[in-house]
Amino acid sequence: MSALDLPGLPPPQVAGRLARLRPRMADAGVDQLLVTSTVNVRYLTGFSGSAGIVLVTAQDALLATDGRYRTQAAEQLRFAGIDGEVELVVGGAQLQREAVADAVRRGGGRLGLEAEHVTWAGMQRWAALLDPIEPVPTSGLVEALRQVKDAGELARIERAAAIADGALGEVRELVRAGSTEAEIALALDTAMRRLGAEDRAFETIVASGPNAAKPHARPTSRRLEPGDPVVVDFGATVEGYRSDMTRTFCVGGEPTGRLAAVFAAVAEAQAAGLRAIRPGLVAGEVDRACRDVVGAAGFGDAFEHGTGHGVGLDIHEAPAVGPGSTAILSAGVVVTVEPGVYLPGVGGVRIEDTVVVTDDGCRLVTHFPKDLAA
Amino acid sequence: MSALDLPGLPPPQVAGRLARLRPRMADAGVDQLLVTSTVNVRYLTGFSGSAGIVLVTAQDALLATDGRYRTQAAEQLRFAGIDGEVELVVGGAQLQREAVADAVRRGGGRLGLEAEHVTWAGMQRWAALLDPIEPVPTSGLVEALRQVKDAGELARIERAAAIADGALGEVRELVRAGSTEAEIALALDTAMRRLGAEDRAFETIVASGPNAAKPHARPTSRRLEPGDPVVVDFGATVEGYRSDMTRTFCVGGEPTGRLAAVFAAVAEAQAAGLRAIRPGLVAGEVDRACRDVVGAAGFGDAFEHGTGHGVGLDIHEAPAVGPGSTAILSAGVVVTVEPGVYLPGVGGVRIEDTVVVTDDGCRLVTHFPKDLAA
Repeated sequence: MSALDLPGLPPPQVAGRLARLRPRMADAGVDQLLVTSTVNVRYLTGFSGSAGIVLVTAQDALLATDGRYRTQAAEQLRFAGIDGEVELVVGGAQLQREAVADAVRRGGGRLGLEAEHVTWAGMQRWAALLDPIEPVPTSGLVEALRQVKDAGELARIERAAAIADGALGEVRELVRAGSTEAEIALALDTAMRRLGAEDRAFETIVASGPNAAKPHARPTSRRLEPGDPVVVDFGATVEGYRSDMTRTFCVGGEPTGRLAAVFAAVAEAQAAGLRAIRPGLVAGEVDRACRDVVGAAGFGDAFEHGTGHGVGLDIHEAPAVGPGSTAILSAGVVVTVEPGVYLPGVGGVRIEDTVVVTDDGCRLVTHFPKDLAA
Repeated sequence: MSALDLPGLPPPQVAGRLARLRPRMADAGVDQLLVTSTVNVRYLTGFSGSAGIVLVTAQDALLATDGRYRTQAAEQLRFAGIDGEVELVVGGAQLQREAVADAVRRGGGRLGLEAEHVTWAGMQRWAALLDPIEPVPTSGLVEALRQVKDAGELARIERAAAIADGALGEVRELVRAGSTEAEIALALDTAMRRLGAEDRAFETIVASGPNAAKPHARPTSRRLEPGDPVVVDFGATVEGYRSDMTRTFCVGGEPTGRLAAVFAAVAEAQAAGLRAIRPGLVAGEVDRACRDVVGAAGFGDAFEHGTGHGVGLDIHEAPAVGPGSTAILSAGVVVTVEPGVYLPGVGGVRIEDTVVVTDDGCRLVTHFPKDLAA
């Protein structure tokens, strides 16, 4: 077994992705594509370093990175089984750029640049180097491929979600009056790493009382008080793949008053969103299913964000699941469903699962119970 | 005391930064600047959310963000004392863009976009919205301001470094035969949070034995063995400000053979780099001071990266400290000095401090001893 295997999980099927990308490049009118997003580089080649670019031509491909990654890049191309079809160039920035430029000139035709990732200045530098070749902007070519996960990818996302479930199980007793938000967040992050995550999936949110009204609050030293809502939004990372889950607890028991109505509306909305998901559905309809319930409960104005997003190598990736989202869901797509209601000065509630679209609906990836008492 | 104060540290002096930016905008030939880098947004306004844009005009400024940050953005502008001079716009992406476009049209003149941060596609969207106004590319305007740290910034960097020193003190006894890299990294990350860091400064590196030959290795489940070099590269974050430090240990005692020569060369090179630093020096000379020592010891080809980089709100920021770096060091600039030598298959050594340039040299921010036995 290679050191790059994750015991018990099928390996990711990196080989074949370049071949599936090429028809999309042709559809977009480009003969070559320069991939500068490091996440897209990882998806296409298995190389997980923080700096690398890939040139995909009609027949071949080239991965360029710097000396820090000489050993790692070679190992990862070999592990992916594509060291025969991807030329590896290692060296300083100038050497990399010239190697790419030479290959672009040899390949000929129209060159696409990832316009959502390359900076304006980066584009100008490539255009100057490649003159008279004028790069053309492309958008979402690799991201479209990434939406449908293979078995190895799903296994990693599900492992990440299981680790997050387990961590919350260990930490839940800390969600009580007197604990600070920061203590709970640290305990979750530590438990996820101890349970086998390489990292959290994003900065863990633990937001209590009035802080729960801020959807993206950072954990503070605020101590939980009886009756507080506590929004816990977190996930784990396993071999680059992420999970995402939110639970909202109520310190000391069931919520009362206005928060009770909010809890009920969000829980019902989240269930409605999950029920709506099926292959062939427009993603915006999942958002509508949630939003209808929240609106009927009278909290429509307080649901300030989209219902969800794709999850994979990025914590937020295609498809978006918001008002007017036009992506069509298909089996193997992984998305979150996370309606929320936020009342400034009072608190907030969000409930979120990550799910995989299946042939006839969806399957939960996150399994922690959604009852609210803490 | 506001909840945003960090006890015992002077507050950052956010007010005044917009005024210092405007002459630089004029020098760059722009009348307005659209700031899209979230770190630059934070520097100019104190707003620390993950999504926000700032338009700086000749007289005024506007901060646009989304509903998730309604409360936080208002609080942070008030805390910075600039809520009177920065208009806050909160809403969906379209509303934000239109508010910015209206203000740009009112302001008139040439509009700069941060070309090193805005994507090519982002630039195209702004150009289409603002037509016939054509944005012009700018580079490094806010970054140049950020190089010289004020007392509040230095206090946060030094607090972060003290936390990292303390964490390594707690964890050092784990650097022994039988421990895994991942265990040590987790212990460091946990200790830094417990000691008051809001987060680590970047993904902690613990690289042992042959892994130490990869400058940016990720911690693995490899168990340390007697005689291994162990590169530990890590830092803490306090209110957005980071520290950066590397120590290399030798498991079970002093290194022998070729690694002993490498240890000695890197330690001497790092000391030479520190001695070279003074205000008025060209940053590339610090790199040369280190590289001369490594080269004289016969390991020049194995020192594959630059000597250092600025540290602040970003872990890597201006000024660069590498071969040919042309930035002039001045008092208050914070940089790392981190020569390293890497022998594929054998191991590697890197020693790194973060320092503040002073009126007559530099002051160490990181204080952990550099002796190598573990």
